[in-house]
Formats: sequence, structure tokens, C-alpha cells
Amino acid sequence: MLALSQDLELREFCTALNAGRTAEFMEGLDDADVWRVLQFAEPERRAEIFGYFDEDRQLAMLADEPAAETARLIEEIPADDRVDLIQGLPTQAVDEILPLLPTSERRDIERLRSYPEGTAGALMTTEVAKLAEKLTVSEAFDELAAIARDLETIYYLYIVDDNNLLRGIVSTRQLVSSLKHKSRTLGELMETDVVAALAGEDQESVAEKVERFNLLAIPVIDSGRQMLGIITHDDVIDVVREELTEDAQRIAAVEPFDDDFLRIGLFTLSYKRGLWLTILFFAALLTAFALRHYESELAVNAWLVWFIPLIISSGGNSGSQSATLVITAMTGGEVELSDLPKVLSRELRVAFMLGGFLAAFGFLVALFVAPSAVAAMVIPITLLGVIMCGCLCGVTLPILFKRLGLDPALMSNPFVAGIVDILGIVIYINVARLILG
Amino acid sequence: MLALSQDLELREFCTALNAGRTAEFMEGLDDADVWRVLQFAEPERRAEIFGYFDEDRQLAMLADEPAAETARLIEEIPADDRVDLIQGLPTQAVDEILPLLPTSERRDIERLRSYPEGTAGALMTTEVAKLAEKLTVSEAFDELAAIARDLETIYYLYIVDDNNLLRGIVSTRQLVSSLKHKSRTLGELMETDVVAALAGEDQESVAEKVERFNLLAIPVIDSGRQMLGIITHDDVIDVVREELTEDAQRIAAVEPFDDDFLRIGLFTLSYKRGLWLTILFFAALLTAFALRHYESELAVNAWLVWFIPLIISSGGNSGSQSATLVITAMTGGEVELSDLPKVLSRELRVAFMLGGFLAAFGFLVALFVAPSAVAAMVIPITLLGVIMCGCLCGVTLPILFKRLGLDPALMSNPFVAGIVDILGIVIYINVARLILG
Repeated sequence: MLALSQDLELREFCTALNAGRTAEFMEGLDDADVWRVLQFAEPERRAEIFGYFDEDRQLAMLADEPAAETARLIEEIPADDRVDLIQGLPTQAVDEILPLLPTSERRDIERLRSYPEGTAGALMTTEVAKLAEKLTVSEAFDELAAIARDLETIYYLYIVDDNNLLRGIVSTRQLVSSLKHKSRTLGELMETDVVAALAGEDQESVAEKVERFNLLAIPVIDSGRQMLGIITHDDVIDVVREELTEDAQRIAAVEPFDDDFLRIGLFTLSYKRGLWLTILFFAALLTAFALRHYESELAVNAWLVWFIPLIISSGGNSGSQSATLVITAMTGGEVELSDLPKVLSRELRVAFMLGGFLAAFGFLVALFVAPSAVAAMVIPITLLGVIMCGCLCGVTLPILFKRLGLDPALMSNPFVAGIVDILGIVIYINVARLILG
Repeated sequence: MLALSQDLELREFCTALNAGRTAEFMEGLDDADVWRVLQFAEPERRAEIFGYFDEDRQLAMLADEPAAETARLIEEIPADDRVDLIQGLPTQAVDEILPLLPTSERRDIERLRSYPEGTAGALMTTEVAKLAEKLTVSEAFDELAAIARDLETIYYLYIVDDNNLLRGIVSTRQLVSSLKHKSRTLGELMETDVVAALAGEDQESVAEKVERFNLLAIPVIDSGRQMLGIITHDDVIDVVREELTEDAQRIAAVEPFDDDFLRIGLFTLSYKRGLWLTILFFAALLTAFALRHYESELAVNAWLVWFIPLIISSGGNSGSQSATLVITAMTGGEVELSDLPKVLSRELRVAFMLGGFLAAFGFLVALFVAPSAVAAMVIPITLLGVIMCGCLCGVTLPILFKRLGLDPALMSNPFVAGIVDILGIVIYINVARLILG
């Protein structure tokens, strides 16, 4: 259509479908073409469609647009999203754009930018339905009718007094079901026990509240109960996704990073990984010293060497499983600190079953290579011991970490594995000593 | 208050706060007391508060209640939640309760129960605002006013024809902002390009749609576009949480399970873990054969043995990091199959930095134990090779798995580590051969 520059069709294309799908259809086009198509949409609509592209593409599209163009677009983007966008733009571009915006908008953007990443303040939007207590139901509807189209959500109305202090909340649902009593005031309808977030509050605890209370949006207030804005459900989903992804990364001993995997700088990435790899490297060095210490035993029974990787990886794997299960269970709120005894007793039994099972296999294999059936017993006994060790470390360390007030996910699988490696070798050689004399 | 049986205070306690918080305050009480307190709340309110306890406690509370009591409660619980609750109750209890419910409700429950776990049908609620196209804005408001309080959300109105076919959608926001044009019909207002889910659709793809289009709720239709119900944002958050938790578990080589970590049967758990542990065990066996094959080399240079765990764990750890990063990036939609070349070229450079860094440490250590500085070179060269191997396997295997249409998270860290272990030993010995001759 672009090629044939069928303006009408393009205008149609920008309006007929819902914005998200319009964006989806254009995924294939290159940035310049997308931008050209967007010019056929009304400013408001343009911003809406634009919002469905991921940040990379948004920034790419704006890269060589004149500041005026960008400013016009930014005016139409919801308050919370446009701040994220601006964070991504080169500073001198921002300095050109901001002056072009209406003062009120500029102030708003600057205030939102001032909140540090990961706080409620940085997530919130300031476009919210704030109404006065004394309004009647019908007055409220008229108010709403006037402001609705500029707001991200009107599903909760926030009741504030003249000093902008949050007094209560009325859901549109309540309002609608009170349509028959037009003269009742919002003050009578409102729920005064409002679940709110503080501007400085950590985004994970905000998400936790929204989930627990099944909210569509949560109001953000300052320490003085001043109503600052709201955080909407879509931002909450993003937080949950972010939180759990960071968990998974910590579990694998990577320092989490904000940026996309394909966008983060290679040196930063190497640092975030190297940090832990180095720690784990020195942990693993201990195994080298242990083995050196047991040199004589290994020299006499060379066949013991063959099973070293098998034994330490069995311990490490069972440990990783346990650690991951406990860490995810704690993130999901299924396991509390107080559950440690229960967790341990369950794990003990599971570990025994798993260890016994693999020990049996180990014995069969050992029979072929060990000098005698008695000597072969070294392998199953070690495996059972190492696997039980791995499982118990795996469940205990994260819970201990949590009790110490640290992030349990920091007690990553490789870390557990590292500890189990050393234990494994010590157990191995000592079992061997006992049995082979 | 219970002790003093201060009925008034208790009634007050059940109504003053919002339901979620009331439930929170009662977390401390034992099930019987909670239940007794709930008796002081209006049936509707009771169900609401009850809904905020986790399923275990809900079931515990109902355990020894007469069927009639339970039935009365269930009538008040939202359609989607009560089905989950009923799934948890013992069958004979269910058989007693269902007949006590109004026929319509019973049919509704039966139908919802018929959808398999993990499908849109199983998540949806049937309590939804369905309106006719021809209604005017003001008529729509009257309709809404009548039904609002029984619905979970009224934030979207679904426009259906006489055969209950989904024709379009109107957001309450649009409706409110059209208040001035009372005579316009829903047909004129409605968005006809509706994003919907099929009843049999997988819950993850439903969540993906809701996230992509920032929806508050998504309609569920059958293959004939019959409107069946809606899925609300709170259920979507749960799905996202579930999906990512399962990812983390697969990454650690545990078959995911639906049940809580503390509730799942020990044999099931052992099976879900043992399955993978056994596979990994046999993978590790190969290392034993490899080492046996290289027996002579190791006999001559016993000191090589000391570094075996260090080398394989370095490879395993860097591999786990890479795999986790790629898997989480794919789940988050940051990495597509087509990105493989880019991912590889980036990973290659990162791996080189990480490997070079650790190799340096390795060399220093080796200098102390190796017979000569030249011999010591075996360690750093091996480390560099193994770590680069680990990183490249780590990023490639999950992407390949995805291309094969399998879950990339199945290419778990221990699995990657297992492969890298063997490669590591082969690299190690051959480097040694080259250098030590």
C-alpha cells in the first residue's frame, strides 16, 4: 500500500483494527516505513499504535526525527510510558524535546523521571481520575465523561480532599450500580480502607499487594498521603515477569541486568557473569587441593579417578534441583522460613529414594571396573552419601540465606554444586579408605 | 473478640475494612475461629473474605462443614474461583453439595469443570456483561446498573447477537465518555476487531495475548464464535507466575508439577526429579569411560587428576549461565530463533573474555603443581577451550530445541553441563597430550 501510496487505504488501515493488531501487522516493515504509515493516523491514534512496538523499535523510529515531531508524539503517550521512552533517548535529544512540550506536561515528566528505577514512583502514571467527596453520583458521571478519554484507566475513582490527600476509593462498578441513587455522594459510596503504595516503595512489594488484593490499579501516595498517581495492572505483570526472570538468572549465578539480553553491553555482561564464575572457580580450586591431598589413595586405586566426575555431578545436579525447588517455592510464597523442619524431613526421604536408586545403577557399573565386588561398594555408598548431601544443602542454604535477610536466589545452583563438589570428594575418598583399607 | 463473643465488634470487623485486609488480619487465627468470625459477615461479604485465603485453608475450613453450609458459600463465590475450590473438595462432598445449588449455577459449574486444566476454558468466569447491539448508551447504563454487582468486572461490555455470537466490545470508558450522546447505540460504539481466546487455547498463549494487548480481560469463545465467558487480569498474573516458575524448574532439570512444593506427594516428586537425574547419570557415566580410556596419560601425570573437577565445573557453570540467559530471554520474547547468529557472535566474545580471565588464574595455580611452566600451560588452554565450549553449547542447544518445536527449558542446565563435562575431559586430555607429548 505504501508503494502505491494509497493514502485512503492506509488511513483506513490505521483506524479499522485495534491499535495492538495494527502494530502487529507492521512488525514486518522497516522502521522508516512504519513511521510513514503512522503519519496517516490521528495524533492520538498514532501514539497508541506506536506504544505497541517494543522500546528498541520506538527509539529507532525516533532516532532521526526532528525534535518537534517527537515532541508532538510524546504529548500523546501515557505519562508512565513516555518517561520510559525519554529515558532511552540520547540526552541532547531530550534537551531539545522537553522545551517543546507544554509546561504542565514537562513538569510532569521531570517529576516522574526523578523517581529511581524499581520504585513505585517510576512505574506510576499521573493520569488518574481524582474526584471530590461531595460530588453526587450524577455529577461524578459528568466529570468522568469529560476526562475519561485522556485517562489510562477510569476503573477506580480516587477521592481526594482540597489538599490532594487520598480519602477513599470508588470503583466504576460501584458507581454504575448506584446509578439509581443519583443524589448519593462519592463520600457515602467510597471505600476508605484503601490499599496504596508509597512512591519510594520497591516495585516487587507493590506487585505483591496488587496480586494479593486482586487490584486493577493501585494508588501511589507520598509519606503525607498526598495522591501522586496510580500503577496499572499491565505494569504489574511486567514487574512479576521481571522479578521471576531475575530469580532464574540468580539461580544460574548471573547477576541480573535491566537491559535486554541482546542489547546489554558485552563488558557489562561479562562482568555480571564473571563475578560469580570467579567465586565458583576458587571454590572449585578447593577440590583440586582435596584431590592432591588424597594423591596416594588415587595412585593405588586408579579406577577411583574414573568416577570423580560422575560422583560430583550427581551431587551437584540433585543439589541444583533442591535449591531451585525451594527458591521458587519461597518466591511463590509456598515455603516460609518456619517450614524448614518440614522441608528437611521431606527432602531427607526424597533424597534417600533418589540416592538409593542411582546408587544401584552405580554399583552395577562399578562391578565391571572395580577389582572386587567389595571394592565396587565404594561407588554406591558414595553416591548415596553425596546425593543426600546435595539435596540437604540444596534446601537448607537458600532458606538460611533468606533467614539472614539475603536473597535466597543468591545461593545459586552452581554455588550449591560447588560446595557439594568438595563434600563429594571428601566423602568419596574416605569411603574408599574405609572399604579398601 | 471471639473469646468475649463481641458480636457487634465482629460484625463491624467483617465490614469496615476491605475484604482482603480482613482476611489478612485473620491469617493468625486457626481455621475454626476464622470460620466462626465469617459467620458474622453477610453471605456475599463472607464469600469475598473467604476468597482471600489460600486454597489449603479454604478446603480445611470446609472440611467438616455440612454440605448445606458449603453450598450456601459456594453460591456466592465467583464462577471461576468456585470451580477451582470444588476441584479440591473430596468427590463425595461435591456430590452432596452440587444438588443443593440452583440448577443454573450447577449447570454452570458442571460446564466449567469440563474444560481441561491449563486451557482458557478452565480459567474463565461466566459472569460477564453481555449486551445487545441495538441498546442505546443510556439503556446500556440501566442494564449495567442492574447487573453490575453480580459481575467480576464490568470494564468491558461484550456485544452479542441473539445467538450469543460475539459481535464486538465496548469499554466502560468509551461508554462513559459517550454519556453526552445518550441515543448512540452500542453497535455504533463497539470495536469489532476483538482479541479473543478459544476455550481450548493454552493458558500461556492467552496470557501472552493479554500482555501484548494490555487487556483487563479477554473474552473466551468457542470455534463458532459463541461467547462463553471471560478471563480476568488476576488469573493472567497467576498464569505468568506459573509459566515462569515451571521454566525455572525445567532449567534445573525438574519436571514441573501443579501442586505446592510442600503438598506434592514424595513419590511423585522423586519421580519428577529422578527421571532427569537418571538421564544425567548416564550422561556422566560417559565421562567415566572417557577417563578410563585416558588411563595411561593420567597415570604418567597424576597432577592432571587434581584439576578434573575444576575444569568440568568451570565449563558447566558458564554453560548454565548461557543456557539460562537464552531460555529466559526467549520466554520474555527478547530472543527469536532468527537471532541465533547474533547470539552466537556475542556469546563468542563474552566466552573469550570470561575464559581468558579464568585461564589466567588457572595458570598461576598450575605453576605451583605442574612439573614445568610449559606443562602448566595445559590448564589455562584447557580452561579457555572448555569455557568457550560451555558458553556456545549453552546458547545453541536451547535455541535448537526451540527450533525443533520442543520446550527450550528442557535443555536444562544440568543437561548442558553434562555434555560439557564430557567435552571438557576430551579437550583436557588432548591438550595435555599435545603439550606433554
